[in-house]
Amino acid sequence: MTRIPPKTVGRLSLYRRLLDLMRQDGLRFVYSHQLAHDAAATPAQVRRDLMVLGPMGTSNKGYDVEELIAAIDEVLDSPEGQRIALVGVGNLGRAILAFFAGRRPRLAITAGFDNDPTKAARVIMGCRIHNVADLAAVIAQEGITVGIVAVPAASAQAVADKLVAAGVRGIMNFAPSPLKVPPTVHVEDMDITMTLEKVAYYAKHNKEKAVK
Amino acid sequence: MTRIPPKTVGRLSLYRRLLDLMRQDGLRFVYSHQLAHDAAATPAQVRRDLMVLGPMGTSNKGYDVEELIAAIDEVLDSPEGQRIALVGVGNLGRAILAFFAGRRPRLAITAGFDNDPTKAARVIMGCRIHNVADLAAVIAQEGITVGIVAVPAASAQAVADKLVAAGVRGIMNFAPSPLKVPPTVHVEDMDITMTLEKVAYYAKHNKEKAVK
Repeated sequence: MTRIPPKTVGRLSLYRRLLDLMRQDGLRFVYSHQLAHDAAATPAQVRRDLMVLGPMGTSNKGYDVEELIAAIDEVLDSPEGQRIALVGVGNLGRAILAFFAGRRPRLAITAGFDNDPTKAARVIMGCRIHNVADLAAVIAQEGITVGIVAVPAASAQAVADKLVAAGVRGIMNFAPSPLKVPPTVHVEDMDITMTLEKVAYYAKHNKEKAVK
Repeated sequence: MTRIPPKTVGRLSLYRRLLDLMRQDGLRFVYSHQLAHDAAATPAQVRRDLMVLGPMGTSNKGYDVEELIAAIDEVLDSPEGQRIALVGVGNLGRAILAFFAGRRPRLAITAGFDNDPTKAARVIMGCRIHNVADLAAVIAQEGITVGIVAVPAASAQAVADKLVAAGVRGIMNFAPSPLKVPPTVHVEDMDITMTLEKVAYYAKHNKEKAVK
């Protein structure tokens, strides 16, 4: 299977969520321009993205909603599901657990890790919390392939190293610190502070422009 | 003042955090290659980014750490500070409040909004929560310029419309739904679900590749 570029993967994930809403509304067919409108993309972009799904039947009523969802499932999901480890069960970690709890059975956070011994052995939002010392063993035992890093910047690299050594191949990093990982591991940064400072910069700039 | 591209603004925010750590360690001068190493960038990239700060004295000891931080402050911060409104005080909203509480006095969440009347009039992590109905009044009164959207996808656009009408010019959007805003408003999406699905896709792909 060819590797699909990250932006396309991101948009396929978005299309699937939008298609799921359409299906809930009883819609059976959709035109690329409708999907483009909801996804804030162009119809040409949508058609290009959907081409990675392989030949897709289109009638004069547009794409079949069920068929599109199934084709995106096929590309994005694993038939046997994927398990996720969360490292760092502070305020942010707990919010992440609450956010994903029960949402996608095929992509579930099945183990949490924290170095606070009072948290280990607890179950938070249906997820068992372990001591970080047991990380490698639990990841191997549960066949976890994805990690979420929600620890302070100072410990993020050490945590990432442990995850990679344990066999994790994809990391979502909430720590405000770039991670160094081998090329076989994919990292997506969710740097909340950087993003807020970016937004604040443009808010300031756009205000100044409006005043001038 | 010329508008700096989003990626450069993001890296300046990162450099400032790294420089602040260096200052705490007692470092007075830094070479571009040191900053590049910590930021996972190239030295040429760092030097290009720092050029937007204007002429910067470099000696054979490198850049002056204090001077660099002050120059980044000048570009990113407002002398009078900027205030932020958070809309949606559920699990994620509360984690965002906890994350930013007391962190940056010049960029502070000063008002929270929720449509749950039991939350309104409470103070969470030092931030007063209001009813969404009072959004425009509170934003005008407090001179808020930045908004954080942490509501479900179905209400995100309506909330964004209210924020924009109230004068907000920058939005950090955690809702898994693209927002439509006028060109005078800057939006940064923090789509946690999409990002996790992206990471999971590459984790799966890299595993398959390793097996083959």
